[in-house]
Amino acid sequence: MMRVVILGGGFAGLHTAKGLKDAPVHVTIVDRENHHLFQPMLYQVATAALSPGDIASPIRSILRKHKNTEVLLGEASRVDIDSRTVHLEDGRSIGYDYLIVGTGARHSYFGHDDWADDAPGLKSIADAVLIRERMLLAFELAEQAATPAARRALLNFVVVGAGPTGVEVAGALAEIKEYTLRRDFRNINPREARVILLEAGPKVLSTYPAELSEKARQNLQRLGVDVRTDTMVTDINRDGVTAGGEFIASRTMIWAAGNIASPLLKSLGVPLDRQGRAIVEPDCSIPGHREVLVLGDAANYPHQGEKPLPGVCPVAIQMGQYAARVIRSETLRHKLTADRPQFHYRDKGQLAVIGRGRAVADIGKAHFSGFIAWLLWIFVHIFFLIGFRNRVIVLMEWAFSYWTYGRGARLIANASLEDGARGADIASASDRRRATVA
Amino acid sequence: MMRVVILGGGFAGLHTAKGLKDAPVHVTIVDRENHHLFQPMLYQVATAALSPGDIASPIRSILRKHKNTEVLLGEASRVDIDSRTVHLEDGRSIGYDYLIVGTGARHSYFGHDDWADDAPGLKSIADAVLIRERMLLAFELAEQAATPAARRALLNFVVVGAGPTGVEVAGALAEIKEYTLRRDFRNINPREARVILLEAGPKVLSTYPAELSEKARQNLQRLGVDVRTDTMVTDINRDGVTAGGEFIASRTMIWAAGNIASPLLKSLGVPLDRQGRAIVEPDCSIPGHREVLVLGDAANYPHQGEKPLPGVCPVAIQMGQYAARVIRSETLRHKLTADRPQFHYRDKGQLAVIGRGRAVADIGKAHFSGFIAWLLWIFVHIFFLIGFRNRVIVLMEWAFSYWTYGRGARLIANASLEDGARGADIASASDRRRATVA
Repeated sequence: MMRVVILGGGFAGLHTAKGLKDAPVHVTIVDRENHHLFQPMLYQVATAALSPGDIASPIRSILRKHKNTEVLLGEASRVDIDSRTVHLEDGRSIGYDYLIVGTGARHSYFGHDDWADDAPGLKSIADAVLIRERMLLAFELAEQAATPAARRALLNFVVVGAGPTGVEVAGALAEIKEYTLRRDFRNINPREARVILLEAGPKVLSTYPAELSEKARQNLQRLGVDVRTDTMVTDINRDGVTAGGEFIASRTMIWAAGNIASPLLKSLGVPLDRQGRAIVEPDCSIPGHREVLVLGDAANYPHQGEKPLPGVCPVAIQMGQYAARVIRSETLRHKLTADRPQFHYRDKGQLAVIGRGRAVADIGKAHFSGFIAWLLWIFVHIFFLIGFRNRVIVLMEWAFSYWTYGRGARLIANASLEDGARGADIASASDRRRATVA
Repeated sequence: MMRVVILGGGFAGLHTAKGLKDAPVHVTIVDRENHHLFQPMLYQVATAALSPGDIASPIRSILRKHKNTEVLLGEASRVDIDSRTVHLEDGRSIGYDYLIVGTGARHSYFGHDDWADDAPGLKSIADAVLIRERMLLAFELAEQAATPAARRALLNFVVVGAGPTGVEVAGALAEIKEYTLRRDFRNINPREARVILLEAGPKVLSTYPAELSEKARQNLQRLGVDVRTDTMVTDINRDGVTAGGEFIASRTMIWAAGNIASPLLKSLGVPLDRQGRAIVEPDCSIPGHREVLVLGDAANYPHQGEKPLPGVCPVAIQMGQYAARVIRSETLRHKLTADRPQFHYRDKGQLAVIGRGRAVADIGKAHFSGFIAWLLWIFVHIFFLIGFRNRVIVLMEWAFSYWTYGRGARLIANASLEDGARGADIASASDRRRATVA
């Protein structure tokens, strides 16, 4: 039986596996996490609106009815294209007839990897929890701050990059300080906190039509976000950010500016673009190896000779479905076919949420914003979220947040209260795990 | 205005603060966590049924309407009784007129603190998440195990101590292996996993009437738990447990056997019992200092000359309510009164859940078990859970679990796949936090 190995249980990998249900192939899906993550809602975990479990489902649980599918918790270290073998970090190897690479992307700091500790990005549950704890802890420390300068730095929240993630995080932070925490403190007024959104380019949401970009900026400003476009970040350290020549003191910085594809792709030995993505053929395969398909954020798919397809869920989902169709059809005919159909992306538009009742929608020729766009965002995201339970719970959480402005997951569980300026430490029992919160 | 300082935002401290709403006193509540934790349901986080956010609420959010109350994230290091001052770890100090000590208890390993890493206890959210991740990771590693012996050790789950927590954890683990994971693996049958409950005493749930103890044991055995009473643990290391002379290979061990009160109590300079609790007067104060009340798990309250009151929620809640009444009444009269009424505990009974539809109830003269006891457990716990949102979400989660046998929070987010036997490692991006899973 043909062996299909899928690297990555994100949208691309999972939809390939789903499309191969009951196909006469043996599928192995490898991921270093035990769960599929609904990334478009990850910013809601980082901003304490949802619990991690609400947007993550065990991959093996999603695929439990796929008798031909095995799920392996592990990390691929390299691919040997010639012997058709995937090598895992633990030394084991897996042979394949088809290889699906859906290993996604991680943050890129454009050569400044030392910024990562001070300005974490938002890709995994662990990232989101880290950002959530830093954000909540900043307010706690500000409440106790010894000097106005220390308080000011603690209440400056800086988001770098005004793509969808940056805009969503900035909007949510603004709502937290304006509404959620309004009455919770005695020594500080959370409304004095500043949310600063830095963008090197000339506009927010650069992939959107100009009018929606402008709407998004207005909405953010109405929420109190300090939006600074054409502002390049030149330095980040534990005390703050330098951007556009100005130093902004801050203890909570979030990186949403750049992506780079998984380093595994280097082992494929094919041309990569500047973001480390494999430049794929019209059938998503790599040059000279039709049995290897690179999908989703890992692929640079030259879209009708224009810009490559963006790194968004619909692309990954459609590529996964396409890959499964190709494998099914070729498996039935017992060969890789010369007339393999090429992948066609059906662009369904884009949506970004800015805050409660505020979103922008760019659906074909329709461009709109406000409450209707926000309802559409909710509908689409609940629809694509995996699992009936998660859908119901998330809808409930959103309903509570909408009516009360509350956020259900304001939890600091791993961080130790450690502030250089004050030397405070609230570490507890020896078996308690710690994260260093700089 | 009188200054009331409350150490600990558990049941005792929180109920003291609640009882002092709008009283003419200034209240400062100090906790090293930002959240109040509903401890009776913590085992459900450890067994992936609930998310941490479902049973934790920010203390400052609970008390936001208490204008006279300040919440301070910090850890008290010692109390200076004579100068009526609490010293915090960060060097600051707070003066008080009344001091409420509700600092609870932590695990006691009876002199074997080196067992803590291998057999963590269950007191905090971080503990629960650690246990959840070890448990889920054990099944993942068993699926990939190279030898039958390695697989066997990974599928042995050992719970030490058959009090309510130990019984609840063992019952939940048994349901996970029997039902939740039934169809999720390809190389192992999760039903082959063994859950072993070790108890040094002669029976499970030793504080319950003999008939309910026996019912609980039968229920556990029917769920497949290997219950071993009169079995003393003599050693724990990373490879397993030695108990009753037998070595049990295991990678997932949970400690639910002993408690010791917070070390802060030593600084009070009053007699402590063997569990480190302050032996208090009939008004919960310490000898010679009527302005210092020790409550809940931190107190040894000699109940009508008999055994001290147990370390359970109702005791802590009632003590907190009592302390608030005392302070209110004395503040109105501007003095500590000689005729302070003594604390009276109203015993409402005890409840322990064993599994889906199985519980035992010891309510006054009524002793019963089974489905009705289980419904009662649900009703009582939802009633006492703090926050309307949490109640609704938890009820929904339970309904889903009841119908589907699923568990909504099967998430490994912090653990790296690190197994000595295989040398596997799935560590990811540099900014990802790690927990070492031995």
